[in-house]
Amino acid sequence: MVLMTGDEYRKSLRKRGPLKVYFTGERLKDPLKHPIVQASINSVALTYDLAHNPQVQDVMTATSSLTGNRINRFCHLHQSTEDLEKKVQMLRLLGQQCGTCFQRCVGMDALNAVYLTTYEIDQKHQTQYHKRFSEYVKQAETHDWVIDGCMTDPKGDRSKRPSEQKDPDVFVHVVDRRDGGVIIRGAKAHQTGAVNSHEHLIMPTIAMRNEEKAFTICCAVPADAEGITYFYGRQASDLRRLDQSTEGDIDCGNPEFGGQECLVIFEDVFVPTERIFMNGETEFCGRLVESFAAYHRQSYGGCKVGVGDVLIGAAATIAEYNGVEKASHIKDKLTEMVHLNETLFACGMACSSCGNATPAGNYLVDILLANVCKQNVTRFPFEIARLLQDIAGGLFVTCPSAKELQNPETRDIIEKYLIGVEEVSTINRIKILRLIENLTLGRAAVGYLTESMHGAGSPQAQRIMINRLANIENKKQFAKRLAQIQ
Amino acid sequence: MVLMTGDEYRKSLRKRGPLKVYFTGERLKDPLKHPIVQASINSVALTYDLAHNPQVQDVMTATSSLTGNRINRFCHLHQSTEDLEKKVQMLRLLGQQCGTCFQRCVGMDALNAVYLTTYEIDQKHQTQYHKRFSEYVKQAETHDWVIDGCMTDPKGDRSKRPSEQKDPDVFVHVVDRRDGGVIIRGAKAHQTGAVNSHEHLIMPTIAMRNEEKAFTICCAVPADAEGITYFYGRQASDLRRLDQSTEGDIDCGNPEFGGQECLVIFEDVFVPTERIFMNGETEFCGRLVESFAAYHRQSYGGCKVGVGDVLIGAAATIAEYNGVEKASHIKDKLTEMVHLNETLFACGMACSSCGNATPAGNYLVDILLANVCKQNVTRFPFEIARLLQDIAGGLFVTCPSAKELQNPETRDIIEKYLIGVEEVSTINRIKILRLIENLTLGRAAVGYLTESMHGAGSPQAQRIMINRLANIENKKQFAKRLAQIQ
Amino acid sequence: MVLMTGDEYRKSLRKRGPLKVYFTGERLKDPLKHPIVQASINSVALTYDLAHNPQVQDVMTATSSLTGNRINRFCHLHQSTEDLEKKVQMLRLLGQQCGTCFQRCVGMDALNAVYLTTYEIDQKHQTQYHKRFSEYVKQAETHDWVIDGCMTDPKGDRSKRPSEQKDPDVFVHVVDRRDGGVIIRGAKAHQTGAVNSHEHLIMPTIAMRNEEKAFTICCAVPADAEGITYFYGRQASDLRRLDQSTEGDIDCGNPEFGGQECLVIFEDVFVPTERIFMNGETEFCGRLVESFAAYHRQSYGGCKVGVGDVLIGAAATIAEYNGVEKASHIKDKLTEMVHLNETLFACGMACSSCGNATPAGNYLVDILLANVCKQNVTRFPFEIARLLQDIAGGLFVTCPSAKELQNPETRDIIEKYLIGVEEVSTINRIKILRLIENLTLGRAAVGYLTESMHGAGSPQAQRIMINRLANIENKKQFAKRLAQIQ
Amino acid sequence: MVLMTGDEYRKSLRKRGPLKVYFTGERLKDPLKHPIVQASINSVALTYDLAHNPQVQDVMTATSSLTGNRINRFCHLHQSTEDLEKKVQMLRLLGQQCGTCFQRCVGMDALNAVYLTTYEIDQKHQTQYHKRFSEYVKQAETHDWVIDGCMTDPKGDRSKRPSEQKDPDVFVHVVDRRDGGVIIRGAKAHQTGAVNSHEHLIMPTIAMRNEEKAFTICCAVPADAEGITYFYGRQASDLRRLDQSTEGDIDCGNPEFGGQECLVIFEDVFVPTERIFMNGETEFCGRLVESFAAYHRQSYGGCKVGVGDVLIGAAATIAEYNGVEKASHIKDKLTEMVHLNETLFACGMACSSCGNATPAGNYLVDILLANVCKQNVTRFPFEIARLLQDIAGGLFVTCPSAKELQNPETRDIIEKYLIGVEEVSTINRIKILRLIENLTLGRAAVGYLTESMHGAGSPQAQRIMINRLANIENKKQFAKRLAQIQ
Repeated sequence: MVLMTGDEYRKSLRKRGPLKVYFTGERLKDPLKHPIVQASINSVALTYDLAHNPQVQDVMTATSSLTGNRINRFCHLHQSTEDLEKKVQMLRLLGQQCGTCFQRCVGMDALNAVYLTTYEIDQKHQTQYHKRFSEYVKQAETHDWVIDGCMTDPKGDRSKRPSEQKDPDVFVHVVDRRDGGVIIRGAKAHQTGAVNSHEHLIMPTIAMRNEEKAFTICCAVPADAEGITYFYGRQASDLRRLDQSTEGDIDCGNPEFGGQECLVIFEDVFVPTERIFMNGETEFCGRLVESFAAYHRQSYGGCKVGVGDVLIGAAATIAEYNGVEKASHIKDKLTEMVHLNETLFACGMACSSCGNATPAGNYLVDILLANVCKQNVTRFPFEIARLLQDIAGGLFVTCPSAKELQNPETRDIIEKYLIGVEEVSTINRIKILRLIENLTLGRAAVGYLTESMHGAGSPQAQRIMINRLANIENKKQFAKRLAQIQ
Repeated sequence: MVLMTGDEYRKSLRKRGPLKVYFTGERLKDPLKHPIVQASINSVALTYDLAHNPQVQDVMTATSSLTGNRINRFCHLHQSTEDLEKKVQMLRLLGQQCGTCFQRCVGMDALNAVYLTTYEIDQKHQTQYHKRFSEYVKQAETHDWVIDGCMTDPKGDRSKRPSEQKDPDVFVHVVDRRDGGVIIRGAKAHQTGAVNSHEHLIMPTIAMRNEEKAFTICCAVPADAEGITYFYGRQASDLRRLDQSTEGDIDCGNPEFGGQECLVIFEDVFVPTERIFMNGETEFCGRLVESFAAYHRQSYGGCKVGVGDVLIGAAATIAEYNGVEKASHIKDKLTEMVHLNETLFACGMACSSCGNATPAGNYLVDILLANVCKQNVTRFPFEIARLLQDIAGGLFVTCPSAKELQNPETRDIIEKYLIGVEEVSTINRIKILRLIENLTLGRAAVGYLTESMHGAGSPQAQRIMINRLANIENKKQFAKRLAQIQ
Repeated sequence: MVLMTGDEYRKSLRKRGPLKVYFTGERLKDPLKHPIVQASINSVALTYDLAHNPQVQDVMTATSSLTGNRINRFCHLHQSTEDLEKKVQMLRLLGQQCGTCFQRCVGMDALNAVYLTTYEIDQKHQTQYHKRFSEYVKQAETHDWVIDGCMTDPKGDRSKRPSEQKDPDVFVHVVDRRDGGVIIRGAKAHQTGAVNSHEHLIMPTIAMRNEEKAFTICCAVPADAEGITYFYGRQASDLRRLDQSTEGDIDCGNPEFGGQECLVIFEDVFVPTERIFMNGETEFCGRLVESFAAYHRQSYGGCKVGVGDVLIGAAATIAEYNGVEKASHIKDKLTEMVHLNETLFACGMACSSCGNATPAGNYLVDILLANVCKQNVTRFPFEIARLLQDIAGGLFVTCPSAKELQNPETRDIIEKYLIGVEEVSTINRIKILRLIENLTLGRAAVGYLTESMHGAGSPQAQRIMINRLANIENKKQFAKRLAQIQ
Repeated sequence: MVLMTGDEYRKSLRKRGPLKVYFTGERLKDPLKHPIVQASINSVALTYDLAHNPQVQDVMTATSSLTGNRINRFCHLHQSTEDLEKKVQMLRLLGQQCGTCFQRCVGMDALNAVYLTTYEIDQKHQTQYHKRFSEYVKQAETHDWVIDGCMTDPKGDRSKRPSEQKDPDVFVHVVDRRDGGVIIRGAKAHQTGAVNSHEHLIMPTIAMRNEEKAFTICCAVPADAEGITYFYGRQASDLRRLDQSTEGDIDCGNPEFGGQECLVIFEDVFVPTERIFMNGETEFCGRLVESFAAYHRQSYGGCKVGVGDVLIGAAATIAEYNGVEKASHIKDKLTEMVHLNETLFACGMACSSCGNATPAGNYLVDILLANVCKQNVTRFPFEIARLLQDIAGGLFVTCPSAKELQNPETRDIIEKYLIGVEEVSTINRIKILRLIENLTLGRAAVGYLTESMHGAGSPQAQRIMINRLANIENKKQFAKRLAQIQ
């Protein structure tokens, strides 16, 4: 079974055992039927359906390095800089299609990072992690899994190490070791698409110290494993999604697609040995975290650019609907939006084209440039969104509900007074305004703004890496030589 | 009756005749009891209650230039640059107290602008507008009114003049003239606090041409006048307010205070002559619009600075709760937030201290500097909010509902895993996170971000004024003289 | 003798004993006749001549609080917020007239800072500094002195305190105490207009510790005192000034006016007791440094704005000469330059209008806002200069010397090929281009850019003050109250 | 003769006939011996010497597509995206080595642009340009020529077309056609390295209209052709270079390397037919200009990044010399400099890796991304230079001449007072300060700042291209589809 369709993916989710999912104080009876969850599943499903679209199959799929099969690129171990570039193009394409987070990159990035790290552990420790993990990747490819790359622990008091926390459970760790596996406890926060996944691939969240072996655990568990609880995050304007009338859809802005973030609790979950890929080799946590982060920082040079294209398109559309598309300042602002967006894309592509083969054989991006990419992503989307707000005019935050259009008492008034240029119906104008709200202050803004800030590591994390990789000593030599300093 | 309290204000609203208010497709039976409306009324009520607080009475009240009474500063005609400065301080104070828009500046700014313009019209046309309007201001002072300054028309196709629109009703205009008054028709969009007002003071939205006399109407109508319909705007995360449980309050972020924006329709509303303050004197529309805009652009150098103080405080609080308040990059970001915020305040104060007496006797801000002030307000709050998102960490968009804390099945888990530093309870951490969401992506973001962009005129409107008032010819002379160009 | 003219000022300089001034390895025989020095003196002389111009006398002069005489405002102790505002206006005016640094603010700012500090020392220590200093100010007023405010020591290794330096002389300090006075040794760097001054008013450069009493010395010495050596700084394109032909003037860009920065060495200079204003009271160094810095950070909201006006004028002029003044992007860039420049002015005015009386009676600016002002000055002039470079086109860095115009072989070619619009002569076009070079990469850029960065303290110095004065605890209370955190 | 050394290059320049070069009103007798010219030649010579350095030969040389020879990459027709990437790496390398403009990119970019355009002209018009030009490229490769790519005309009144100018000579054009060739007249401004070149490759500067056939001329002339006059540009602090003492070298900042910009006049220069590559085919001017501009906008993503490395190195060095390298704000500013610089590099690499084969067979960069690259180059170097100024402290603009060190009277004083950390000699500290002056306000600033702004087209030129290539219609479709607009 390779290359599932979106519907097959939806079916595959239903085959999982029951998940324990909480939302607004209640356990959801059938999470997959919840409108908010469904919108998020629609985004993931796109990653399957587009793999069957002949026009984009080249970017959406790849030839497995393990089996030679044609597989979804989200399960692929990158075999070249071209593969790395196609990943970025794929993510941009998906962002353009759903205008939000499609939740499947983290797993892809985790697969590649664990793959290269397990190889390096085995080289040093004569362990079997890489072989085990290669088997795991084969399964992921074959079942076309959505994998939730689980890295970020809740962390408790950030001024303290994992081993110094009052309650060590704020970092996932091994609480018991037994024949055939280990028992883990802890939680992972901000888990994108967790409920929509087949698997969780758990990784340590920071470089660990010698005494933190229990926290040094990398392993995989199925999404329906015993002991897992999901807390679905509340997000901006989420309740609008509960109204699934046509007018509710309009008020949602992006009626079909949504994102998803969960807090996932692991309470004494058993992991069998064959699903353990690192277990106490503290000196490799840094390598795993940095390579995963690098892959994921590259990702943002694709997905956010795709969503950025939607913001630019929304800006151009509302300008046209308002009758101002020829104003020079509007054109200039659109140009600036494009410029910033393409700068992000350039960074995504550059860290790909400067990538290199790892000892394990898969390709890793240029780490310095990937961090530069993400650092820009913590800035430019905010400016692009600001420019969209500028071009949009203020109506997207003061507009009455589209439900007024369904009420015969008020429909004519709304249509009359909220018209823009004559050629465009008021309802279409409202639709684009609500999409703009969604992108800048609503559901999609969570992904386009806050996730751009903190996903794949907060800005300061990138700055530390940039400083470390900059080779400033070398640059000092350039300056000293020119100044003829002996 | 001067200097009402908040409760007296609430009562005064109930004395109005029934308002026709629509929200999400329904006419509200008792708008004042609607939770969303109530939160917005709480903000307005602060402007009354603080006038009774001896510690701030000096900034909250003033001595009427018309009656000598002690009045709420929101009803005051500014008599000095000190008055203009105190206005800015008052708005900052209120922003700090409610963390959102308190909806009463527009009326104050309209009062002052109409006051000076009517004087100048009378000087030229020997009309009686100024005397009439002085009477109106006296009433406003005496009844301590909230006045909705009604300027922005829906505008239809922005590439066309009012007189060129297919449907002229997209600009308020006189449709009939009769003994004792006129009939007006049209709408005003983005009306801040409209439902919470006693009065609407209607003004033309742009400089009008000779043939646009019908659109040149400035007049006052009571909020409960026959023919007015209100469409309450949908805003980011507004539905959370409908849940008024304690946990719903937490999820709201700012449980007590909210803003309000309406689309107000005037369908053949009669205005008696004594409430008409301009009627066809097209050459004075520019003066009215520019002076109103200048006052209102000054306002943003106060209110948004106050809300900015809340963002800075929220950033410092979450940094402390996360255990990172001593990190140098956190301190530096806080410093930057303060720096930007105080730059806005400096602009608000400078356009005040450089203000001048008008021929009518009240004081007008320096128009160039007021436009510079507002132009900065279209930028810095976005950066301040971005920095707040940076400092906050990502949890404010992925956090489960506070309702999980009320569910005995889940309370312990949430408390355990979402703890920050030990000294702070998880619930307090969630509270500040939800306030941050409210300020950057929720209800208050509407006011702090989008309104900062478009309120008192969109950025390009300020740029046109800055260019016009810059006296560039003068500056060319400086350069030519230094270069010794003959 | 009050209110000298420029010529009287020049004469007064010649009355000083001979100064020991080195430039490019040679001691200058007659420093005042050196073309580079003369250009800098021309700028100072403007501060005298304009005091006689009736149109601007109100801003250029003031009534002495000590004698009741009409004095040059540069010698004035500010008596009101209006005085503080007029200071800013005066500095802007002068910047517009000379397009560079006129070198007289530092003394004015030092006078006011030492005045308020000596009062506070006397209050605590029953010393006589304030009386002495008041006498000194009277003399300064009466003789209409240029005073070089001497604060910045060379500082040696910045990671060490004054008392920890290998050679303590990198901070000015008392090396001997004798009847009737003290002997000081050390140096002051970056001394603006030092050679053009009548007096040096020496102040400590940082808050000192208990054990650093010898470094805690505030005193005055005449510019021609025994033991002083001046090293004239080399600055960008300075040698062009040595060619004083007409064409050399053109290549200079700003033929008449220049700035001046010196390294001043004090080798065992004797200071009589009546000229000592602080002597070991270490706990007051902070007050002196911070109040001086605040005054001087305010100054930049005036002088740099005036020079900014010249940059804007130069941009508008070259746009006209190139035939592009109607292009929308040119107009927009000019608007941005004005906007940034007026923002600086607003900060200068705001810290003035928010100033307060000190215990000594003179007025001090709002320190927080003065630091905010200067922080913006470390940014916006760089952007204004960048925009000027953008508008100018590249010719200002590739243009042949104006001397080609004087060479008959080449004059016609240059006139033919470097013409812009027909109405403007090539020579005028070259003149404005060279002024632009001067302002962005030449002599004036030193003042407009680098001095904007480091004068009155480097950016980080302001950030420390902004952070300290921000009252962040207060802001935390606003946030916690709104989030209903107990 | 392929792969000359620097010395062979110098000799080859001397083999040219005498050039008519004017500087500061005089014709230079032996331009190659003029110190200012020599510094600029040193930079070009590096492009030869490094081609012999085995460590970098892979980036400095390439295999000719025309002859199979190993040639200098500056003469190469790019055969792959890898070639395009190596070009960027080569330029960065050279910028690091000389800290200024090495003047040889323009020719490389012109070769590639003319190559692809002539092919396309021939395809349409059955002309012989491409064959001729291929021969020309072979010669360029074989003789390892420096080619001055001549594009920018002086342009006169920018509001007028070439054919509308009062004097058509402000655009190069054909003034006579005769057997065996044409006579051209006009000038090219801002010609980088013109005097240091073997050849000028002349191209039209804008898209021409039908009636502008005479202006549509692309051809090559040797640098010593009859009728050519060079006007050497005056640049910031250029006269310092005339003092070639050791101390003068120090004051220069970068004693060995400089740039060069000339105004080149073509007065009735004869061009034989075999050196004409376009002659009246107006519809291809746009293609030539856009492809040349794209190549050259890519170049800036390499050379300026290399110089940027020098600025970063200078910043880190002076921080160390001042004793502040551990301050967190210093580290953060260095990180920001690196981040911005690497963003430029990323753009240079991305437009390369996204390049494509042209119909002629050589590779062209992605035009949209190349414009994005250059647009960033008009911004970030200014910020990098500002940060360098910040880190440097103010001494680099107030420092006495190094000649004071050679004067026995003053040497000890300077060494004593301008010391930084003990381990570093004062003279080394002065050297790095003067390099910083050179890079931010001196000779190298011309290239690093102004040329970054205007070289390869001014910012607005890139914005026009970005807007045109952005495919905004496509983005509108994304937005409309998500909003479900029919």
